[in-house]
Amino acid sequence: MNDYGKAFALMRDAAQGSWRDYSRHAFVEGMKDGTLPHEAFLHYLRQDYVFLIHFSRAWALAVVKSETHEEMLAASRTVNGLISEEMKLHIGICEAEGISQDQLFATPERAENLAYTRYVLEAGYSGDLLDLLAALVPCVMGYGEIGTRLASQATSETYQDWINTYAGEDYQGACKAVGELLDSALTRRIGADFQASPRWYRLCRTFRTATELEVNFWQMGLTP
Amino acid sequence: MNDYGKAFALMRDAAQGSWRDYSRHAFVEGMKDGTLPHEAFLHYLRQDYVFLIHFSRAWALAVVKSETHEEMLAASRTVNGLISEEMKLHIGICEAEGISQDQLFATPERAENLAYTRYVLEAGYSGDLLDLLAALVPCVMGYGEIGTRLASQATSETYQDWINTYAGEDYQGACKAVGELLDSALTRRIGADFQASPRWYRLCRTFRTATELEVNFWQMGLTP
Amino acid sequence: MNDYGKAFALMRDAAQGSWRDYSRHAFVEGMKDGTLPHEAFLHYLRQDYVFLIHFSRAWALAVVKSETHEEMLAASRTVNGLISEEMKLHIGICEAEGISQDQLFATPERAENLAYTRYVLEAGYSGDLLDLLAALVPCVMGYGEIGTRLASQATSETYQDWINTYAGEDYQGACKAVGELLDSALTRRIGADFQASPRWYRLCRTFRTATELEVNFWQMGLTP
Amino acid sequence: MNDYGKAFALMRDAAQGSWRDYSRHAFVEGMKDGTLPHEAFLHYLRQDYVFLIHFSRAWALAVVKSETHEEMLAASRTVNGLISEEMKLHIGICEAEGISQDQLFATPERAENLAYTRYVLEAGYSGDLLDLLAALVPCVMGYGEIGTRLASQATSETYQDWINTYAGEDYQGACKAVGELLDSALTRRIGADFQASPRWYRLCRTFRTATELEVNFWQMGLTP
Repeated sequence: MNDYGKAFALMRDAAQGSWRDYSRHAFVEGMKDGTLPHEAFLHYLRQDYVFLIHFSRAWALAVVKSETHEEMLAASRTVNGLISEEMKLHIGICEAEGISQDQLFATPERAENLAYTRYVLEAGYSGDLLDLLAALVPCVMGYGEIGTRLASQATSETYQDWINTYAGEDYQGACKAVGELLDSALTRRIGADFQASPRWYRLCRTFRTATELEVNFWQMGLTP
Repeated sequence: MNDYGKAFALMRDAAQGSWRDYSRHAFVEGMKDGTLPHEAFLHYLRQDYVFLIHFSRAWALAVVKSETHEEMLAASRTVNGLISEEMKLHIGICEAEGISQDQLFATPERAENLAYTRYVLEAGYSGDLLDLLAALVPCVMGYGEIGTRLASQATSETYQDWINTYAGEDYQGACKAVGELLDSALTRRIGADFQASPRWYRLCRTFRTATELEVNFWQMGLTP
Repeated sequence: MNDYGKAFALMRDAAQGSWRDYSRHAFVEGMKDGTLPHEAFLHYLRQDYVFLIHFSRAWALAVVKSETHEEMLAASRTVNGLISEEMKLHIGICEAEGISQDQLFATPERAENLAYTRYVLEAGYSGDLLDLLAALVPCVMGYGEIGTRLASQATSETYQDWINTYAGEDYQGACKAVGELLDSALTRRIGADFQASPRWYRLCRTFRTATELEVNFWQMGLTP
Repeated sequence: MNDYGKAFALMRDAAQGSWRDYSRHAFVEGMKDGTLPHEAFLHYLRQDYVFLIHFSRAWALAVVKSETHEEMLAASRTVNGLISEEMKLHIGICEAEGISQDQLFATPERAENLAYTRYVLEAGYSGDLLDLLAALVPCVMGYGEIGTRLASQATSETYQDWINTYAGEDYQGACKAVGELLDSALTRRIGADFQASPRWYRLCRTFRTATELEVNFWQMGLTP
């Protein structure tokens, strides 16, 4: 398992069953062995593009909710990484399939997609940076773990571009940086022994709910 | 059709198909003729209690987003009506069934429930009062219409308490007040000819999305 | 000193100098002995009316930021107390002076007034309920303390109505309720030993900043 | 006068007196002819650094409040420009004076400083992107105008670095981009004839209030 810091490892353990459903979902296994129908992948990619719009907004909210210069920089680097790097993958693949960026942006948002991003954004608006990060982390780190695993286990090259993006050095570096942000934000606000705080249970619950919404997102990907 | 003001009537017309799916849903028809299984009703009631917690928070956000004293008063009256009146129905019926208020509050939130309230809250946080009201109105007004219709069409007394709550003078008065708030908030911000504004299309889209999330909520009610 | 709970007493002690400047300000002493010019009082009252508009919005935000039913009820009771009770004092006195409610509402907001309410609202939007309460409490509790002290020390009846409002049972009860809300919100989120948390220092700093903005507000009251 | 788009020119005209007080403030004229005491300049620079922290947060909020990909990109470019470029000027000059970045960040925030940034952030949180932009624009554009004017009128080289930063191509390009963002955001939400909307008056009022808070900021700069 990838090392993305102390808090993430604890949160993942606390959400074990859901984390497994998410990181080993049939959609993921279909990318591994190449059996995922191309139509499902394209459908997922279009929804994921809309997802990334709102996910970038949520990371921008993390800049607003920062209390130190380091927090601001870490969050704003992620916004840029999302807007200028990760979305390129989607735009590139879709363009090669004849889907323009305007069409991508106008993709009708599925309920499973909407549920996830609005949950994250609302957690951030209503809480502080910790509540927001607990909701943001499952997507960032989960894709990092899946990318790494598929890079070593994939038996097909069909979804190699996707796998390389998330297994790659850039994305893995981003996961580590987010892990450090999470650990330091917790320590700053709660203390080094953050898992003893009454808030910890609720932060773990937010993490788990976001993980379950990821499961629903993959499931939606299978039903274009 | 009930008269809850000009803007609501226009928004409902623009969301026609979804509005029909919502206000004539099998769950509703099952309350009308008494065929709705009691288990489904109790399940719905518990989820609706959790819904009302977040819905009250969203109406409190409408107080925060108000620009005039009248807007503040109208929104805060709705918060009180929700917290102190509408939730009583749920608490009363559930208590009679041996479900305590603490149990009610601790009901695990279903994804269809979460999707709806977070969508409303996020629309409110990210936009102004108009964006928030467009997302709040389908629930308020839809229950008003359904209550009125079922009061005259019901062929069973099984769900009479529920029907009476929403068909009753208090609730109908609240719907009219919300309709006036919506009309005046639109006129204040856009002008009397608000449906000619470029925003109108997006406000109607928010209304329709919220209506679709209501359809999903009823559907969830049928699957305890 | 009035007993409004544990956290308030600790926060007040941590802001000692500023708290004294606020609760013993020349404006306050002028109400005590009746030497405060009537013009200054009316000017203050009009600014305070505008203040209460935004302060009520901030308390409504506390409803939005609540995590339990008890927190929601406590916060929404305060919104109602503010909108329907405390503002009546201002409307009543101003009407007797020939200033209508519309004129009151249209009072041009002074910079010292704006600074305070926007600071409170932003603390609430950017943080969680604790950050918001730390910014709300100095106004609520300070007026409670001043009211009680002036009720026993006043040597003039000129500002008796004002004094009675804040020394009265209703307002004192509200202060106690807010003190309980603050204590329980801290315990729920941080634990019973909340003053040992790294957040405590920052919450105390927010309390002190809000107290300093109260000092500026009184000062503004002296310069119509 | 610099051309930063249609809406800015109209808003500036509507706030004429305040705009003049801001853009021709004694602090500005003191930079022009070099008579501004060095101590006042350093004091201003430290406060302005704290200002830019919160101003960057407000621009990040503009990313959150965006409705299109173009709006997101324009706002996030400004966040980066602020965090990585404009703040460098402050850090550089202060370092040369023996003031470290940590000391800069820990500068106690003056009330005039706090009033301004909290006003901007709250306008953004409570309203939509237009309310936020109306509060953000006076700072961005005002510095652009002052920089241009001082570049041609300065009779002293004492504050040349400051002048060059804001008169420079990079900063002037940012002003033009923000002007385009403002024009297009208004057109998208209100229509091409946006100045005929009932909202226009309130947006101009927000612009004017922010301009007045700029005047107070310069004034604070003169009183270390």
